[in-house]
Amino acid sequence: MKEKAVVLLSGGLDSSTVLAYAIERGFECTGLTFNYGQRHARENNSARAISSRYGIELKDARINLSEFIKSSLTGYGSVEHRDIESIEESLPNTYVPARNIIMISIAAGLLQTIGGNTIFIGANALDYSGYPDCRPEFFNAMEKAINTGTGSVGSNQIRISVPLQYLRKSEIIKMGMKMGVPYELTWSCYEGNEEACGMCDSCQLRLRGFMEAGVPDPIKYSKYPEFYKK
Amino acid sequence: MKEKAVVLLSGGLDSSTVLAYAIERGFECTGLTFNYGQRHARENNSARAISSRYGIELKDARINLSEFIKSSLTGYGSVEHRDIESIEESLPNTYVPARNIIMISIAAGLLQTIGGNTIFIGANALDYSGYPDCRPEFFNAMEKAINTGTGSVGSNQIRISVPLQYLRKSEIIKMGMKMGVPYELTWSCYEGNEEACGMCDSCQLRLRGFMEAGVPDPIKYSKYPEFYKK
Repeated sequence: MKEKAVVLLSGGLDSSTVLAYAIERGFECTGLTFNYGQRHARENNSARAISSRYGIELKDARINLSEFIKSSLTGYGSVEHRDIESIEESLPNTYVPARNIIMISIAAGLLQTIGGNTIFIGANALDYSGYPDCRPEFFNAMEKAINTGTGSVGSNQIRISVPLQYLRKSEIIKMGMKMGVPYELTWSCYEGNEEACGMCDSCQLRLRGFMEAGVPDPIKYSKYPEFYKK
Repeated sequence: MKEKAVVLLSGGLDSSTVLAYAIERGFECTGLTFNYGQRHARENNSARAISSRYGIELKDARINLSEFIKSSLTGYGSVEHRDIESIEESLPNTYVPARNIIMISIAAGLLQTIGGNTIFIGANALDYSGYPDCRPEFFNAMEKAINTGTGSVGSNQIRISVPLQYLRKSEIIKMGMKMGVPYELTWSCYEGNEEACGMCDSCQLRLRGFMEAGVPDPIKYSKYPEFYKK
């Protein structure tokens, strides 16, 4: 019998690659996506498209975080546009306080319900926006908290697997291309327009990744950052 | 300026006592209550009544946990009735996997939004139902996880305060009576009927507490457990 896992699936490039990785590793995956009052539901649509492509079940957690947790991603102010160089230097206004903490907590509850031991998350400690809940030390501390809090000991211990943790975006893309991840279905932009904006942290990190990987990004952008050469 | 805190407020006896305690200690409190698809919304009403009595702001987190996290409290099966002696011996079917983990995570996000350092929670490691996320080692691990995950260091560190942790239910009640906690507004029963059932874990622990404290419980019960003597 396959080992069960919960995969946090935003519908973005990273989490979609992680899903493909977990399936390749033989896990029976349940996707978990979050609707927390983001600026737009576009990434939720991508999560649905990706999970349907892979034939996995997708659970949709809906939570009204935007009513009391402030971030430009939950509708307070607008998404900052910064130079690619400054992205890793300071915490952007797209930071949603405690978001990964909350998502992993809910994943732990779902995991106990389905009877699995692994939570996969597409976080990345290199090409990322500087969020504290993407750092390796956070995942270690959180793993301990959920094991203590769910009383999971011995062979029932829960593991938070962060396979992309030490990969650059270009390496993630190369890995995903090998596994045939349908990147045309993914959505990374913080804005929810028809085409990706090309200017938010997430778009710039993604475009730099594709550029460095030497493959074209299959999604459409309305604008390209200065550094980008097709 | 008063230090800000988030108080997890279910509307039950414990969390209401903790709110009174936090206010007495000089904190400017924001209540946080959860609607996660419980069997009934009665405790939410109590949380509103208590916070309105104390004149604090109450945030209402709504999350569809019942759609994918199974527990008799989220509508799967019925609430077990057990002898008071066996309540602390095994995990009951009212256990909602990862519930406190989830609630504390969301409280951490709210805390970062309002700019406070303390989360108060009414958990209790003596007269409780054996939930693993009520144990002291869980709160220690969780405190570390949220500090790492929110990047809170030095004087900004978040503290999870569990003032009732080592008190028996009767001691909590005595403490609350001294502070004038309006116990008539609180609701502890797992069922959502007009009167408390008197038979679920929560009712029995509450009734034993009032009996041992030597004061009458101001709420109405439809039935009393055998051990109870008014």
